[in-house]
Amino acid sequence: MNANIDAYVDYRTSVGFLGSVLKYMAIPLTLPLGVALYYGESPLPFVVAMVVMVTAGVGLERLRTTPDLGHREAFLLVSMTWFVVPLLGTIPYLVAGQGTVAHPVNALFESMSGFTTTGSTVLGEISFDRHTRSILMWRQVTQWLGGMGIIVLMVAILPELSVGGAQVIDEEAPGLSIEKLTPRIRDTASALWRIYIGFTVAAMVVYYGLHLAGVAPNMDLYNAVAHALTTMPTGGFSPEARSAEAFSPAIQWAITLFMVVAGTNFALFWYVLMGEPRRLTGNAEFRAYLAAMLAVTGVFVVLLFTGLGLDVSPSNVAPIPGHLEHALRQAAFQTAAVVTTTGYASMDFNTWDQSAQLILLFAMFLGGSAGSAAGSVKIIRWYLVQKTIRRELFTSVHPDAVRPVRLADEVIDERTVRGLFVFTMTFVTIFALSTVVLYLDSLRVGLELSAIEAVSASIATLGNIGPGVGVVGPMNNFLPFSPFSKLYMVVLMWIGRLEILSVLIVFTPSYWRA
Amino acid sequence: MNANIDAYVDYRTSVGFLGSVLKYMAIPLTLPLGVALYYGESPLPFVVAMVVMVTAGVGLERLRTTPDLGHREAFLLVSMTWFVVPLLGTIPYLVAGQGTVAHPVNALFESMSGFTTTGSTVLGEISFDRHTRSILMWRQVTQWLGGMGIIVLMVAILPELSVGGAQVIDEEAPGLSIEKLTPRIRDTASALWRIYIGFTVAAMVVYYGLHLAGVAPNMDLYNAVAHALTTMPTGGFSPEARSAEAFSPAIQWAITLFMVVAGTNFALFWYVLMGEPRRLTGNAEFRAYLAAMLAVTGVFVVLLFTGLGLDVSPSNVAPIPGHLEHALRQAAFQTAAVVTTTGYASMDFNTWDQSAQLILLFAMFLGGSAGSAAGSVKIIRWYLVQKTIRRELFTSVHPDAVRPVRLADEVIDERTVRGLFVFTMTFVTIFALSTVVLYLDSLRVGLELSAIEAVSASIATLGNIGPGVGVVGPMNNFLPFSPFSKLYMVVLMWIGRLEILSVLIVFTPSYWRA
Ligand SMILES: [K+]
Ligand SMILES: [K+]
Repeated sequence: MNANIDAYVDYRTSVGFLGSVLKYMAIPLTLPLGVALYYGESPLPFVVAMVVMVTAGVGLERLRTTPDLGHREAFLLVSMTWFVVPLLGTIPYLVAGQGTVAHPVNALFESMSGFTTTGSTVLGEISFDRHTRSILMWRQVTQWLGGMGIIVLMVAILPELSVGGAQVIDEEAPGLSIEKLTPRIRDTASALWRIYIGFTVAAMVVYYGLHLAGVAPNMDLYNAVAHALTTMPTGGFSPEARSAEAFSPAIQWAITLFMVVAGTNFALFWYVLMGEPRRLTGNAEFRAYLAAMLAVTGVFVVLLFTGLGLDVSPSNVAPIPGHLEHALRQAAFQTAAVVTTTGYASMDFNTWDQSAQLILLFAMFLGGSAGSAAGSVKIIRWYLVQKTIRRELFTSVHPDAVRPVRLADEVIDERTVRGLFVFTMTFVTIFALSTVVLYLDSLRVGLELSAIEAVSASIATLGNIGPGVGVVGPMNNFLPFSPFSKLYMVVLMWIGRLEILSVLIVFTPSYWRA
Repeated sequence: MNANIDAYVDYRTSVGFLGSVLKYMAIPLTLPLGVALYYGESPLPFVVAMVVMVTAGVGLERLRTTPDLGHREAFLLVSMTWFVVPLLGTIPYLVAGQGTVAHPVNALFESMSGFTTTGSTVLGEISFDRHTRSILMWRQVTQWLGGMGIIVLMVAILPELSVGGAQVIDEEAPGLSIEKLTPRIRDTASALWRIYIGFTVAAMVVYYGLHLAGVAPNMDLYNAVAHALTTMPTGGFSPEARSAEAFSPAIQWAITLFMVVAGTNFALFWYVLMGEPRRLTGNAEFRAYLAAMLAVTGVFVVLLFTGLGLDVSPSNVAPIPGHLEHALRQAAFQTAAVVTTTGYASMDFNTWDQSAQLILLFAMFLGGSAGSAAGSVKIIRWYLVQKTIRRELFTSVHPDAVRPVRLADEVIDERTVRGLFVFTMTFVTIFALSTVVLYLDSLRVGLELSAIEAVSASIATLGNIGPGVGVVGPMNNFLPFSPFSKLYMVVLMWIGRLEILSVLIVFTPSYWRA
């Protein structure tokens, strides 16, 4: 945070930092490149991407005028990074030219869906017949990279920028929040990344370990790596066309566990490593997060066990009412998948009846914890919105009472409370308008979209969840949408991922004025 | 406002004031009674209601312990009044025993819909064959009385109670707001009522005058009185089964004009009478209100004139694309009907296509002006929410800037800003949950409700608008719903009318504690 804060927007420095990000993208590109070489597939998609990223990166880096990033320049950097990286991330898809993502609009959709950890797909056919293993691995890698960026953004950058109530994360992790945008950001980032990498490796070991133990027949090494890479960022891309349905119950339970971990505030794991596990278990947000998931799971267990929540029309594959482990597993898996915004599917919830699907839709608005890669509104915001509503009821009766909103013992600053409401109202309004845009555009092109399907497409992309219900259900894809709708959803994924306001800011005139 | 404000809830005094309200209900009951006597119909429904109201009223009045109403007692009085008056307002329907409202649940729905000026109906058949003229007149009278109560509530009581940002009305009409809950409330109320009565008489004279002038064949005296009584409270009940479609273009234009008046802050008319018309024409809310209506009207004119917004499937009565006056009139009428939350219909908008209906649904969330009987969120709240979002964007870039939210030149108190957000979030959340409740309950009883119809039923009742789309469209009714759903919507109309929070307050434990 440097001194020229209000002088002008030093966009050259923002572009310069973007250049550094692009340059370093060459490193993760080595993973799909290695896969390509191992399986004897063409390395060209990744070599071209590397050359373009490094060239552009080194070129842009020279524009940097100062070594420090200012407050306003940080906004520009964040918005640009999550647009330019997904844009250049299309190169492997375009060069490979396999399947539906050979089309530029689809490639951009898939790349944005990856880097924003959304997980909505426009792959018409997910199979190794149509796509090389290396290209499908690139898809996984985009999510893993996106998650890495988002966790640092959420824990270290947005709270410092004080936008949309993101400051609340500070209250949760004061030890990590000192002087974040100074060079110390590297320390914070590196601590978080070690945790992120650690959990990714753990997931990989568990998934593949279950395979070696003989209880996960098709979780081979490729699948174990692929799914570990998309679990931790709450991403949800899978190289299996039927997502997690393809795997054994043991794997589904393991994925459930790692999804719950992935939706937790990563800063809290840092305390656990420091020998203070109670900072995790006693945390108000963590408890609200677990409570919300248990409540939703409970409802689904009842609906699935009794068969009440299942659509038993003859056209559906028969689900299994009356099977307790099955009901428990599906309920826990789908709840975790939706609440953490991961978006994997362990069964086609298009076979669920409308009541169960509606509850699923509502759960999509919850979102995971604030310091994770989870999207949507996030549970802590609902928790504090609800507390503020109660406070309003109280102060209306006792007008002279002074009663701050508290999170555990911490008093939440009124500026933060306002930010939370502003964010939530903006989110809900954009969601509602986008539902109408997607619905009307589908009418225009003759795509028969029901209102509920439009609702689910809107929240699934804005909330970075991935699949919706019906035509955009977990075993289907977003391919049928018009190019306009696809580009519109690209924007939704982009702004949703960056908590909306930090993107909107860059488009206000006052941002550019001194 | 007396001194024992924090001692305990003096519910006896609240009940005592409710008694006075009930006692005075005998006066308006004389109107349908007169109609009954004139047309030779049974006077019994109204005589019984009078006896019960006066007896209950005089009995309850004795409970009053002090002559002044405290802050907390006012909340209780308001919630009770809008529940008990509609409850006893069912007596004429039950005693008359005509048609579907002879059933207690339907009678309560119709009565609550009347006193809350909602205008949703469960009359299976609106005709003088099935219902006497006096009973249908009672239906109109309930709306007129409800509107009278609401205007005083909005301008004189809620701002004083400082709930949900209602204080903002004070900024608009400071001259009227001094010491509202003191005996002066009578002066404010009486000024507002004279304006309300004046406009009601004006509407009556214009409607009947057009009849006498020969341009409104079926707007006889009965209809002129009936429609004047339901225009000013933004009510929307009509003794004509086809609502305003039954009338000539001249009448439809006249109703449009009076709906626009009815949706305006009544306190502003007071300034006009005082010789300060610029207090009306320069008012920020009034300008936003007109601008919103012009914008929505413009969209509808295009959609209707070109025929783009019309569902031209053969089963529909052919509308008239290409007819400019027709397009203008329908667009202006339906916009005013929805934005002011009156809910009359000049044509069956079920013949509009889904794009036009969706715009209509969105317009239902706007609401009219704050100091009127209009329901829903209200334009001033959206205006200030939008300004606060812009302020948040500004202060995120300029963290040290102090920038209050302003309405014209007035600085809006931060407490009020918070109240506006709390209200809007609560409204939107209850709307969304209610959509699901109505949808699931309809599935349960086998009523085929589309998601959009459920959305429209939820906002039409919570926003006190009246008709929705599809099965609850303007030429249909709410009769097909289950008794549970009907009672649920009774609650929605009740809390929606009282701006939600003022009812919720009474149900919090801290309200009852010292
Ligand atoms: K996701
Ligand atoms: K109405």
